[in-house]
Amino acid sequence: MSENKHLGISYYPEHWPQECWKQDAKDLADLGITYVRIAEYAWSRIEPEPGEFAWEWLDKVIETLASKALKIIMCTPTAAPPRWMLNKHPDMLAVDEANQPRKFGSRRHYCFSHEGYRWESRRITEILADRYGNHPAIAAWQTDSAYGGHETVRSWSPSAHKAFQLWLAQKYGNIKALNQAWGSVLWSMEYNSFEQIELPNLTVTQANPAHCLDFDRFSSDQVAEFNSEQVGILRQLAAGRPVIHNFTADTFAFDHYKLADQLDIAGWDCYPISFHTHYQMESSFGTPEGYWEDYFQQGDPDYQAFHHDLYRQAGHGRLWVMQMQSGPMNLAPYNPVPLPGMVRLWSWEAFAHGAETTSYFRWRQVPFAQEQMHAGLKQTDNKPAQGYVEVAQLALELEQLGPFTPAEAPVALVVDYESQWAHEAQRYGKDFSYIRLVLAYYRALRQKGVDVEIIRPLSQDLSPYKLVIVPALYALSEELSENLAAYVEFNGVVLGGPRLAQKDANYQLSQSSLKLPKPFEGVEVLRSSTSPKEFSCAVRDLADHNRGKAYIWQEEISTSLPVLFEDENNQPVFMGENNTFYVAAWADPTLMSAILDEVFKIAKIDKVEMPSGLRRSKTSIGTFYYNYSKNTVNLKALRLADAADLDGLELPPAGVALVR
Amino acid sequence: MSENKHLGISYYPEHWPQECWKQDAKDLADLGITYVRIAEYAWSRIEPEPGEFAWEWLDKVIETLASKALKIIMCTPTAAPPRWMLNKHPDMLAVDEANQPRKFGSRRHYCFSHEGYRWESRRITEILADRYGNHPAIAAWQTDSAYGGHETVRSWSPSAHKAFQLWLAQKYGNIKALNQAWGSVLWSMEYNSFEQIELPNLTVTQANPAHCLDFDRFSSDQVAEFNSEQVGILRQLAAGRPVIHNFTADTFAFDHYKLADQLDIAGWDCYPISFHTHYQMESSFGTPEGYWEDYFQQGDPDYQAFHHDLYRQAGHGRLWVMQMQSGPMNLAPYNPVPLPGMVRLWSWEAFAHGAETTSYFRWRQVPFAQEQMHAGLKQTDNKPAQGYVEVAQLALELEQLGPFTPAEAPVALVVDYESQWAHEAQRYGKDFSYIRLVLAYYRALRQKGVDVEIIRPLSQDLSPYKLVIVPALYALSEELSENLAAYVEFNGVVLGGPRLAQKDANYQLSQSSLKLPKPFEGVEVLRSSTSPKEFSCAVRDLADHNRGKAYIWQEEISTSLPVLFEDENNQPVFMGENNTFYVAAWADPTLMSAILDEVFKIAKIDKVEMPSGLRRSKTSIGTFYYNYSKNTVNLKALRLADAADLDGLELPPAGVALVR
Amino acid sequence: MSENKHLGISYYPEHWPQECWKQDAKDLADLGITYVRIAEYAWSRIEPEPGEFAWEWLDKVIETLASKALKIIMCTPTAAPPRWMLNKHPDMLAVDEANQPRKFGSRRHYCFSHEGYRWESRRITEILADRYGNHPAIAAWQTDSAYGGHETVRSWSPSAHKAFQLWLAQKYGNIKALNQAWGSVLWSMEYNSFEQIELPNLTVTQANPAHCLDFDRFSSDQVAEFNSEQVGILRQLAAGRPVIHNFTADTFAFDHYKLADQLDIAGWDCYPISFHTHYQMESSFGTPEGYWEDYFQQGDPDYQAFHHDLYRQAGHGRLWVMQMQSGPMNLAPYNPVPLPGMVRLWSWEAFAHGAETTSYFRWRQVPFAQEQMHAGLKQTDNKPAQGYVEVAQLALELEQLGPFTPAEAPVALVVDYESQWAHEAQRYGKDFSYIRLVLAYYRALRQKGVDVEIIRPLSQDLSPYKLVIVPALYALSEELSENLAAYVEFNGVVLGGPRLAQKDANYQLSQSSLKLPKPFEGVEVLRSSTSPKEFSCAVRDLADHNRGKAYIWQEEISTSLPVLFEDENNQPVFMGENNTFYVAAWADPTLMSAILDEVFKIAKIDKVEMPSGLRRSKTSIGTFYYNYSKNTVNLKALRLADAADLDGLELPPAGVALVR
Repeated sequence: MSENKHLGISYYPEHWPQECWKQDAKDLADLGITYVRIAEYAWSRIEPEPGEFAWEWLDKVIETLASKALKIIMCTPTAAPPRWMLNKHPDMLAVDEANQPRKFGSRRHYCFSHEGYRWESRRITEILADRYGNHPAIAAWQTDSAYGGHETVRSWSPSAHKAFQLWLAQKYGNIKALNQAWGSVLWSMEYNSFEQIELPNLTVTQANPAHCLDFDRFSSDQVAEFNSEQVGILRQLAAGRPVIHNFTADTFAFDHYKLADQLDIAGWDCYPISFHTHYQMESSFGTPEGYWEDYFQQGDPDYQAFHHDLYRQAGHGRLWVMQMQSGPMNLAPYNPVPLPGMVRLWSWEAFAHGAETTSYFRWRQVPFAQEQMHAGLKQTDNKPAQGYVEVAQLALELEQLGPFTPAEAPVALVVDYESQWAHEAQRYGKDFSYIRLVLAYYRALRQKGVDVEIIRPLSQDLSPYKLVIVPALYALSEELSENLAAYVEFNGVVLGGPRLAQKDANYQLSQSSLKLPKPFEGVEVLRSSTSPKEFSCAVRDLADHNRGKAYIWQEEISTSLPVLFEDENNQPVFMGENNTFYVAAWADPTLMSAILDEVFKIAKIDKVEMPSGLRRSKTSIGTFYYNYSKNTVNLKALRLADAADLDGLELPPAGVALVR
Repeated sequence: MSENKHLGISYYPEHWPQECWKQDAKDLADLGITYVRIAEYAWSRIEPEPGEFAWEWLDKVIETLASKALKIIMCTPTAAPPRWMLNKHPDMLAVDEANQPRKFGSRRHYCFSHEGYRWESRRITEILADRYGNHPAIAAWQTDSAYGGHETVRSWSPSAHKAFQLWLAQKYGNIKALNQAWGSVLWSMEYNSFEQIELPNLTVTQANPAHCLDFDRFSSDQVAEFNSEQVGILRQLAAGRPVIHNFTADTFAFDHYKLADQLDIAGWDCYPISFHTHYQMESSFGTPEGYWEDYFQQGDPDYQAFHHDLYRQAGHGRLWVMQMQSGPMNLAPYNPVPLPGMVRLWSWEAFAHGAETTSYFRWRQVPFAQEQMHAGLKQTDNKPAQGYVEVAQLALELEQLGPFTPAEAPVALVVDYESQWAHEAQRYGKDFSYIRLVLAYYRALRQKGVDVEIIRPLSQDLSPYKLVIVPALYALSEELSENLAAYVEFNGVVLGGPRLAQKDANYQLSQSSLKLPKPFEGVEVLRSSTSPKEFSCAVRDLADHNRGKAYIWQEEISTSLPVLFEDENNQPVFMGENNTFYVAAWADPTLMSAILDEVFKIAKIDKVEMPSGLRRSKTSIGTFYYNYSKNTVNLKALRLADAADLDGLELPPAGVALVR
Repeated sequence: MSENKHLGISYYPEHWPQECWKQDAKDLADLGITYVRIAEYAWSRIEPEPGEFAWEWLDKVIETLASKALKIIMCTPTAAPPRWMLNKHPDMLAVDEANQPRKFGSRRHYCFSHEGYRWESRRITEILADRYGNHPAIAAWQTDSAYGGHETVRSWSPSAHKAFQLWLAQKYGNIKALNQAWGSVLWSMEYNSFEQIELPNLTVTQANPAHCLDFDRFSSDQVAEFNSEQVGILRQLAAGRPVIHNFTADTFAFDHYKLADQLDIAGWDCYPISFHTHYQMESSFGTPEGYWEDYFQQGDPDYQAFHHDLYRQAGHGRLWVMQMQSGPMNLAPYNPVPLPGMVRLWSWEAFAHGAETTSYFRWRQVPFAQEQMHAGLKQTDNKPAQGYVEVAQLALELEQLGPFTPAEAPVALVVDYESQWAHEAQRYGKDFSYIRLVLAYYRALRQKGVDVEIIRPLSQDLSPYKLVIVPALYALSEELSENLAAYVEFNGVVLGGPRLAQKDANYQLSQSSLKLPKPFEGVEVLRSSTSPKEFSCAVRDLADHNRGKAYIWQEEISTSLPVLFEDENNQPVFMGENNTFYVAAWADPTLMSAILDEVFKIAKIDKVEMPSGLRRSKTSIGTFYYNYSKNTVNLKALRLADAADLDGLELPPAGVALVR
């Protein structure tokens, strides 16, 4: 991880006359931009006709930017193959779940499993890397753009169908093993050969969840394989340049960890207001009342931090923000103007969470096509927009502050992509969502002012953490089970549940025992019960005090552990001893807070209840405070600090304070 | 009808190692199970490759069960044809209304009209019946499983298209007759030949309701024909064994009466909590406030009884429950654990309504595939689940109580499948649902503690009843009209409406008179009016007392009958004399109660308003009371009884009392 | 415009036996009907087999009607081509956006771009016109019926695809020009030839809005071209007879102005209760609380007037109502009976807004097929229905009152079809709807008792108006811009915004300036912000009085004009001077009323706040008042009049008063 902080920009010179480029380069450098990200969607300009390349303009762009000492991030343009390619590969289009080809006319229309497009992807990457791989101005490479955006991971195309059969054959070796693993005997679903297996869409009633889960794993692998082919070429022809991908947030359809392992840096695209809109419109359980309107112009105060922490883990510590929102967007159902100051706030938050570079989307608002209402740092008339002013301020502040890194977090939260697919394969309760449950834990921790390290569901060194939280992993590998048990023995504290480790890797329940794996073997889950989030069940502690509510998912438990909280029917909800704790329900915010308080006592974790909309992150140079709310917050009155840099103790809306 | 009561089980030996079978058989016998239902989805195990049969395991299963004197219900496995069959008949898949083939990967994927699959169905039935038809351990046969489940009655496939044209040609003889019957002249929809007729999906605006209704009749007939082919074979090769089908409840897309006429016993699958969830999530009109949450773990207190009464009629008195819910399910949007005791309550209610056998789903929870979260009497680890305990108690109680049958009901309620299709063919008001209206009547009757006989819309002996209710029959045959008129003359009381007999059998309005048929000829329906269920119109009696509200459907009436209740605009809502009464609106629960009270006075029917969640059924050995509520109900305090067997006068939640 | 007022009827003799016709003709004449509209859906009776014509019945009908001096409107029957035509042209079916052909079985199933069907349309028009063009009884011709009904303007068929490519080639000349105009360079969407261009459905994420807008323009042009072919034939063969089309209201998918320019009279189909139902069920922003239920049996008090004014403009002053609702309908989600008197009220309102003829749908309720529950003036048993009684009264009153015309309106409201498509191409905010915003302005004006002239977005003489309102035109042509500027200079008052003229005709933003065109050049729109209609922002005037709320759409403005109202963040909301005013937000009803009050002061427009449900229209013989509410309104008590004809000063529900 680099301690130095840099600014970057998404720049699309092909949208503007060449005459602008020189002034643009000067303006970018003057603003304090280090990295310029180009060529992301430029395939039709690079190769206007099959096999005919137009390099002049791109050479010129590179030269112009380099002349101002700007460093270039070169993107492979494969997220938007040109129209002419459909003449060569008419079947390269992804097919949607309803069996409709996804037509040309926007972007990401290709199927990851199409061999012809795979070849085109390798071809254009090789040609680009061959030409620019060793160019001194090219500082880094980005592969494709925003894999999985617009729900493009899974394709129900003939190509995907064939590749899936092959993938299954390789995984299972013989068809009997597959039938066994899937339990195909139910409903006479047994297969005689891999050629008989279809994609799990359009079935009469729900498809076999094991079938779905394997299709999700396959689909995830296809993305990783697609990417690895580009990475392989870049390693050869652009050696020494870091390779990055810009992950698209709130997209859990492929395993970002697995793909990031091929990269040097995990990048992501950060659009706080768009996330907030989508998240709130989809569902607000676990979100305090009023969040929808209160954070309409700021974004959810936990959602950005969650993704920073997620991608810092994915990148093994190396995190960049590849696209940062800089004004109102165009693609969300509602597109409000950000509260003044938010672009700067989001940027500080990114840096404090370990981002080495924050790169803005985009330099100048484009006046045409789909993105014409998407703000840039500059207006279409080239005058500075609100984002410009905030970035200019930030650039100065960054220089003054110097390098820093995130502090070590006391709590580790296990986040797993496969569990998202597994639980979606059979929600069992309409309102259950793995990723929303994980976020509910994350939010509860941050509301207590506690930093979080997101970790993978793998065996690893847990000793840096005082507490490890494991919500709803559908299966627990033997290694992780042993590792957690050892961690607990060496005084680590573990909090698990609900819906934890009830299945094996084949998505089957155990036939021999309902006991959970170590270190939760004191808990036996007899059966589970789901209900609408509007229904809930009061929960009380041993002193009969109300501690909040359970909802959405509740387990009937038989346990040898001391029960700490019970529900109305005297069913155990929260139980544990000897550093191992288990929650047998989806806890509402009040209950989750109460549970964390109990566990924090054991784990000796300090907490401060953050007032509404205030968040903080600890770093090597002090603690950053961000005011996401619409009201001024006085850090001094709250006894949070006596002095602060940046916006000071009296923190206005969108204000940022650094407490040393 | 047999007065003896038996217990049964759904058993899937093919899901478990052979080593378990012997112990399972012993455990089943020890629990008091009489009937074991097997082979329902076992085609891929019986015929793993086309034409290659594996009998050994099934022979062994039968032998093992028989060794414990268990009686076997053998199912034809046609609800889930194996994957290899698609190689022989790629076009056997049903096609959905949006023109998409319904893919393999779950169950019920076949089209009823596909000749090739018809042949396969006859073939496997013949082979099975040939082998086991006279086996002494096989006590009964079940055809297929749950016809119509997952909306599989109607198929828009090429096979269905061709068969529909043939069906129409047979019905109408010549195309002119069809054009006349359908009124095709509207919008130039006239046909020159049967070959021109298409299935009524994907039309620009609504298709001709007569076209839809004929397609619904055809689709219903296809199911009946499919079933009759299996029955024909079983009659020959398994003579002397009763033939049963397990109807799936809340599925009105085919005529269950017509199909049941081919059978010896009408069976059905009873999942109270799943029905309640679907019913409440779809619509709650006619349901008192709070039902959704109040009965979340018990099921709607009227829905099971309604289906028992419906299938008792379908089976001409012979009723079995083929699958009884025994714990939480997996397929509903929410899957709560049943309130402790409910499995026993549901079972008692089934027996009291005439069920000869109640068979549970399933013996042991399966750990894989779609149904892995669906409870059995045993957990996956073979320990008893909650359902087991309740069934064990029930088995003992049944033995103590001895045989009994339902008492004769004072009220007959006409329920008609065609009327459901007819009214769906043109709802006219978005909130109008025939079957929901029927259920509203049924509920109102049961809330007054009155038993109901569901009867068919056919001429029959009505003399056993004090009151016959006829809601919303779209057409009244001349026979039924005459029969009702005669019944009224001999002092029977009839209550009809709303939306009664406004059409003829061709779904046409009369051109000569708006008067309803006998005995309702005093009522002329000038026009109808629909509104959202949220809007309603106050209704008053002659003394100007508020008697409730009309909503959803209201008719403008000209009548020669005395008007008893009027709405705000002085329009007649409830009218009648000389034992004939008519309701010109969908009555809300208050109004419906008031109307029944008036009619009960004339018909001399005793009633007792049941407290919330309490229901009762009269039998040959006394009256059963069921407490569906979450509160204890004191029968004595309510003056309902002075002594009671089973759970006694102080009836806890899920309690059952027998008052002699 | 004719000052004389006539009544008409939709008559379908082919639905009834010939024996009825003579009596029908007599009854129609007796009722006071002048025009009889026939043959609209009679193609299958005119040409029962391809090329075989059955004229006898139609000759007879014409003769029978003519014998009673009834004037005939002959319709071309092309809205419902017969089934046999599909054998000749299997691909003539329109294709829906999900790529499904829209099947035969209702009406309007043809694709406007299909050459074969175009030929059939010309053929049948020619044959009909050739036979009846000079018949003395035929007074007028109607082309087709209700273009665009059931969302049939746009078709995604192969025919449409090919025709669209041709249309684009003609528009742009070369593919570079198209790429430039559309900004295809974004996301590498550039085309190498017109053959590569696809229809803009089923894209991965939103298609290019310029692509969508051109497809909408193309689709609109196809309808106009289809119609012009029929009109051309009628001009030749039925010279001297006016040609009419019956536009279907609330259908903005094609340019009604452009098509109406081919006609002599603009007709439309007026179904007040159906509109109200659809409108309220879709969205109620801009509608006062309670409208849904309060006007359930009357229709929205502004919706009919809006369409009368719209089609009076389309017809250059010549307006007919071709189908007037005469009782409950069958096609809406709810179908209430109209409040007694409403048929007469709607008719008077139509006449007062300039209708020359009001023609009722239909003579007698048809007892079969889709429309069997749709009321006529007569019941199926031929007795008079409620509508008959009201029309009979009206006929007498009309005779007494004599001829009249609408008064000149003080306010002109610009309404543009292209703007509807343009804003739908990228709503930017989910709740933004151009046509709903236009209607909000219209409603606010009518609520102040002010008459409105709807005008086109074209250069024209504005001098008759005191005020011109221009809401949300996506682009302002240079001509209109200059015209408005000149109008302002000559003391006209202009009110514009929001979302006004932000794009050019290619749907691109300006790169050189954010200033709006003249006369709004004092306003610069920096950026726009959207939010759910539930969120809103208080607006205050300079004296800090609350003046209402802004919502849905808000602009950040830099302006040289005096700011009159500001929002909570001191952003300008309403600004202006020198007769030019701009609103930078969607104003809620309170704010819109406040803004109009300010502008009325400048424009010297008199207003009277109408009480709930009362509306009025000025004519050459006095002012008509309509009581849409369910309560009696006393005009005298409201100081609106001292004497009134028709229903008098004490106006009952559904009452109409004429104040001289």
